[in-house]
Amino acid sequence: MTTGRATVLVETNKLETWNVEIADPEYGGALVRVVLGGVCGSDVHIKTGEAGIMPFPIILGHEGVGRIEKLGGLDTDYAGIPVKVGDLVCWSPIAACHRCHSCTVLEETPCENSQYFEHAEKPNWGSYADYAWLPRGLAFFKLPDGADPLAVAALGCALPTVLRGFERCGPVRMGETVVVQGAGPVGLSAVVLAAQAGAREVIVIDGVDRRLEVAKSLGATATVSLRDSLKERRRQIYELTGPAGPSLVVEAAGFLPAFPEGVDLAGIHSRYVVMGLWGAIGTQPISPRDLVTKNLTIVGASFPKPKHYHGAMQLAAQLQDKVPLASLISHRFAIEDAHLALDAVHKGEVIKAVIDPEL
Amino acid sequence: MTTGRATVLVETNKLETWNVEIADPEYGGALVRVVLGGVCGSDVHIKTGEAGIMPFPIILGHEGVGRIEKLGGLDTDYAGIPVKVGDLVCWSPIAACHRCHSCTVLEETPCENSQYFEHAEKPNWGSYADYAWLPRGLAFFKLPDGADPLAVAALGCALPTVLRGFERCGPVRMGETVVVQGAGPVGLSAVVLAAQAGAREVIVIDGVDRRLEVAKSLGATATVSLRDSLKERRRQIYELTGPAGPSLVVEAAGFLPAFPEGVDLAGIHSRYVVMGLWGAIGTQPISPRDLVTKNLTIVGASFPKPKHYHGAMQLAAQLQDKVPLASLISHRFAIEDAHLALDAVHKGEVIKAVIDPEL
Amino acid sequence: MTTGRATVLVETNKLETWNVEIADPEYGGALVRVVLGGVCGSDVHIKTGEAGIMPFPIILGHEGVGRIEKLGGLDTDYAGIPVKVGDLVCWSPIAACHRCHSCTVLEETPCENSQYFEHAEKPNWGSYADYAWLPRGLAFFKLPDGADPLAVAALGCALPTVLRGFERCGPVRMGETVVVQGAGPVGLSAVVLAAQAGAREVIVIDGVDRRLEVAKSLGATATVSLRDSLKERRRQIYELTGPAGPSLVVEAAGFLPAFPEGVDLAGIHSRYVVMGLWGAIGTQPISPRDLVTKNLTIVGASFPKPKHYHGAMQLAAQLQDKVPLASLISHRFAIEDAHLALDAVHKGEVIKAVIDPEL
Amino acid sequence: MTTGRATVLVETNKLETWNVEIADPEYGGALVRVVLGGVCGSDVHIKTGEAGIMPFPIILGHEGVGRIEKLGGLDTDYAGIPVKVGDLVCWSPIAACHRCHSCTVLEETPCENSQYFEHAEKPNWGSYADYAWLPRGLAFFKLPDGADPLAVAALGCALPTVLRGFERCGPVRMGETVVVQGAGPVGLSAVVLAAQAGAREVIVIDGVDRRLEVAKSLGATATVSLRDSLKERRRQIYELTGPAGPSLVVEAAGFLPAFPEGVDLAGIHSRYVVMGLWGAIGTQPISPRDLVTKNLTIVGASFPKPKHYHGAMQLAAQLQDKVPLASLISHRFAIEDAHLALDAVHKGEVIKAVIDPEL
Repeated sequence: MTTGRATVLVETNKLETWNVEIADPEYGGALVRVVLGGVCGSDVHIKTGEAGIMPFPIILGHEGVGRIEKLGGLDTDYAGIPVKVGDLVCWSPIAACHRCHSCTVLEETPCENSQYFEHAEKPNWGSYADYAWLPRGLAFFKLPDGADPLAVAALGCALPTVLRGFERCGPVRMGETVVVQGAGPVGLSAVVLAAQAGAREVIVIDGVDRRLEVAKSLGATATVSLRDSLKERRRQIYELTGPAGPSLVVEAAGFLPAFPEGVDLAGIHSRYVVMGLWGAIGTQPISPRDLVTKNLTIVGASFPKPKHYHGAMQLAAQLQDKVPLASLISHRFAIEDAHLALDAVHKGEVIKAVIDPEL
Repeated sequence: MTTGRATVLVETNKLETWNVEIADPEYGGALVRVVLGGVCGSDVHIKTGEAGIMPFPIILGHEGVGRIEKLGGLDTDYAGIPVKVGDLVCWSPIAACHRCHSCTVLEETPCENSQYFEHAEKPNWGSYADYAWLPRGLAFFKLPDGADPLAVAALGCALPTVLRGFERCGPVRMGETVVVQGAGPVGLSAVVLAAQAGAREVIVIDGVDRRLEVAKSLGATATVSLRDSLKERRRQIYELTGPAGPSLVVEAAGFLPAFPEGVDLAGIHSRYVVMGLWGAIGTQPISPRDLVTKNLTIVGASFPKPKHYHGAMQLAAQLQDKVPLASLISHRFAIEDAHLALDAVHKGEVIKAVIDPEL
Repeated sequence: MTTGRATVLVETNKLETWNVEIADPEYGGALVRVVLGGVCGSDVHIKTGEAGIMPFPIILGHEGVGRIEKLGGLDTDYAGIPVKVGDLVCWSPIAACHRCHSCTVLEETPCENSQYFEHAEKPNWGSYADYAWLPRGLAFFKLPDGADPLAVAALGCALPTVLRGFERCGPVRMGETVVVQGAGPVGLSAVVLAAQAGAREVIVIDGVDRRLEVAKSLGATATVSLRDSLKERRRQIYELTGPAGPSLVVEAAGFLPAFPEGVDLAGIHSRYVVMGLWGAIGTQPISPRDLVTKNLTIVGASFPKPKHYHGAMQLAAQLQDKVPLASLISHRFAIEDAHLALDAVHKGEVIKAVIDPEL
Repeated sequence: MTTGRATVLVETNKLETWNVEIADPEYGGALVRVVLGGVCGSDVHIKTGEAGIMPFPIILGHEGVGRIEKLGGLDTDYAGIPVKVGDLVCWSPIAACHRCHSCTVLEETPCENSQYFEHAEKPNWGSYADYAWLPRGLAFFKLPDGADPLAVAALGCALPTVLRGFERCGPVRMGETVVVQGAGPVGLSAVVLAAQAGAREVIVIDGVDRRLEVAKSLGATATVSLRDSLKERRRQIYELTGPAGPSLVVEAAGFLPAFPEGVDLAGIHSRYVVMGLWGAIGTQPISPRDLVTKNLTIVGASFPKPKHYHGAMQLAAQLQDKVPLASLISHRFAIEDAHLALDAVHKGEVIKAVIDPEL
């Protein structure tokens, strides 16, 4: 039995670096040496307690790329591709139970028996660590030959989240006019997908100029600043889309007032997909009449499935030479500096931060 | 040139019976002798001005069944079925332009050039009248042999509206648990469709006992009274559906507070289709987080297409011996008594009222 | 360790009754006392070798209803419903691996690692037996209170197969004109579903009058005899559907010449779903031009998912007092008489046969 | 009244250049000065009689880009965009009746009252001519500012055809493995769309090297020659796609034996869309069992709708600087040389030929 370092949230707002024991994989599982552990905005909410009380102590990190260290008896990934020790893989962070109404009858996520975290002293799949112990049922996927771990890690769980959202609301069609609220990882993922799908306009709203510039580098055709008034923002957007308005609005802001603005911006016969507001407690006033007269569809989406992680990984590998994905990783931190990583994400200083166990 | 009586709204809240000139049909159109003109809740809003200022004077009535009096050169209905003088037909109340973004590119309604009303002194398709002059492009459909005009008129434009709504949100599936908010014509139409589609539960919420009884006669499996508290209503519904909650909620109440209740009632991975609130000005607070965590789809729907009128008519004819549709027509009024019809609808006294030119 | 009887296919065309050891369930699995084991037409093909060489000796039977005898640690079924010893359950006959391209990426069946049979001396889920040992991952579902095991067993794997097929080609819509080729269990399942969905015409083609009568008892609106010529059959069908032809054709005949007839019968803008020809080796000539000019969709479907077994069971329970499902079981056989059951199915004498361990 | 030249097919295989009278547009129609009239492979079949007997004499040409010469009273195109004399437009070649089962109830094409050709001495929308007289109901669309008429004309009616086909079978998804049978305009259109949609493999089969090279210039990732055997072609393709096979096969060959090859090539859980075989009389043997065991969907598609012409035009304008569309036009012919154009297309010498009235 070896040991490895891991960032442990021992209680709200209290992080420690532990040296934990690393178990052999169980049958069907895998032990992975972490190459990059993605730092997600959710991790900040988990640390601060905004996401609720967790089963402390827990090891942080639900995004990861790593190399297989040991296999638990089965020699394929969850897409049936042969794997061996040393192969690069990424993974979906939750093992489905395949034994609940959502899993079996509806084929939907979240699974009703989702286990997000395990006690830090037990075999553990948290990715702010030297090793991730992937239990049986937690889907991992081999990266294609030549795939850049940085490109795959760059959008983290945001890209599968947007694939899931677009599955729910229908894919972006060529020629669409898309508005993306927010230029964090979820918004940037929406930009990449909308641009690749041939949207005629991909208009991004954010308050930080640097994030808007990054959005442009990924395919946004126009940007709108939150410094402009609500009314002015609408005017700019409708000038670009024409009077029918945006055909698709993507909420990726995680900020409550984005919701009524999105409902208002959405054009006639359009779709509004809400992905960023999973953690925003509170209500916002909207006019139900707008839904009827605009023939509007509003779709909430969350909890990507394993297939969305697989698709996101494949897509990142496919686009890595065409779209500057790897360069989105603006900050790298050592395991021991995870608190700094979370601070930087919290302050909005980073485009994407990762934990790099080799630092 | 003959003449005929018609109920004319000369200004807000002022109805008169006029004798108007009846023109021959234009090429492609038809002249129809009205058998039954349906009285819709919208007509009340039009009369009172709540639906906005109209191009007065107008002839009321957008629902109708009639007999062909003269044909304008073409001898088929809009589904290609041969028609002749004397045949029973129903019609969709708006002629599509087939020359706007909604019509041509999106194949969606409403058409951007929709003309709802014509000046009362011009050839006119208002159905509170002896004759309806159907312009070219206004789709009419022959009733199948043996169809009962009462059954076809009973749910009026509500049944096509719900067909449209279910097209937008996806059809009711066998075994679904459906909640219908409101037991007016739209709600009753939703009950009929959900029951026929094999929903396991069809639970109707309304404040009027008689309407709830009618809902039961059409297939509702349970009813919930608005006299019970919001919390108690939720408890009753979740007892019937189980903890996953309703898989489909249908807003057919036309009452603003129904909206947040519907969002709250909607179960995990469910759909909420909003059809009744087209005229309810105002906002209501909802939690966007609920959309995300419940994986919810909210769909606004309105303005059925000609195909939905066709489908509704076919369906009514198919069900007329199985479901007590004709008996939904609780009140009949003469053309001259249209004001009484509107009053009765306004007071909620009727299940369905019609104008019968033969009275 | 107890023992139980089982019908073992020791080699092609050689059946024996063995007394086999019954193991305790593994973790997550269940041991079930068989109430009824359905006899499927496929079993005949397996016995005769037409379905290929099997890993003999095997225990026959992939359809079943039973009572839980022991649970392997988990106390819910695969839809998350609590279960206890003594509960009635049915099951899907194949455990998905959740670790192949079909399972994970496409969410499709068949799973690439499907194991249809286990060696007769190993713990075994064949249902021509006193006990079925359901391995971990093989989905079983609790019957609702009051469900009649006969009604649930009556259509066997045919009803889930048709639910799967209609998922693939889109659901039957109210008012459709449906032609069903073949009145065996798959065809009868299609009749039940089409009739319940409100199809205007449900026309069944078969060569056996008694089967056509049964189809009528389940909702068929018309029947066509294979004794009539191909041309005459087409004439009769088009007289019922009108010149646009059937909007949906269902192949449930398992007979190669049904295929070109189905392509020919299918109307303009229609769908043709092929479900019965999974085992019919050979080609048939069709005109690809027909596909284009008729705007036709042809869909092959097979291998229902666990959710289709769940839905079929729920549906049978829902319909058991409305549709004469239980009476479809025309023949019951003891375990020792399984060879007689297979003979009777082979000769087309039965509507549905079951193995009843209590005989 | 002015006159203009037009290529008239006076009887099978007999072309003449006539000087015909040019009428003013009817109300709602438009008179257009032809800039480019596309030469389609169908025109060859029409000339030779393979497409059936036509209402001779007719003016050839169903593809066109032109400039508005006169408007018939309405000053918008069919997408609601304002138009004026001098604007560049393209058009869909068939006016829908909006009064048949296909148009109204199914919202499908072809319209049952489609009129493909008008007598050459009557106002006429054939595009091998100086002027095209577009009747009321024949949808025309303004090209966006800056659109290159060559780019819009380059793929003619093939691009809308493929948009229609992909609407029928579902859009190309990122990461798909696509096989395109044939590298004529339909096949090249499929290549453009699949490549733009992010298909991982776009493999084109054709017998002419130059066409395969063009396919590569539009985004094909690999080509397969018809000079290789059927077996070798399959081997090459499966090497590229992996053992699951192509996820989408597009028939654009117009050659009967392509059909069974396509069914055979199609991978597990895949789609096969048949678009090229609208005119190929005859049958081909296929195995219906393949449909079932591969879970295959086969879709025939033809007769794009106006929205597909609109979408194709928008797409060509959007891609004109990114994809070498305009250079696909390899041959231009004067109106008087239409017979040479048809010969060249017939001999397979051209990628795309157009009639240019200015030559």
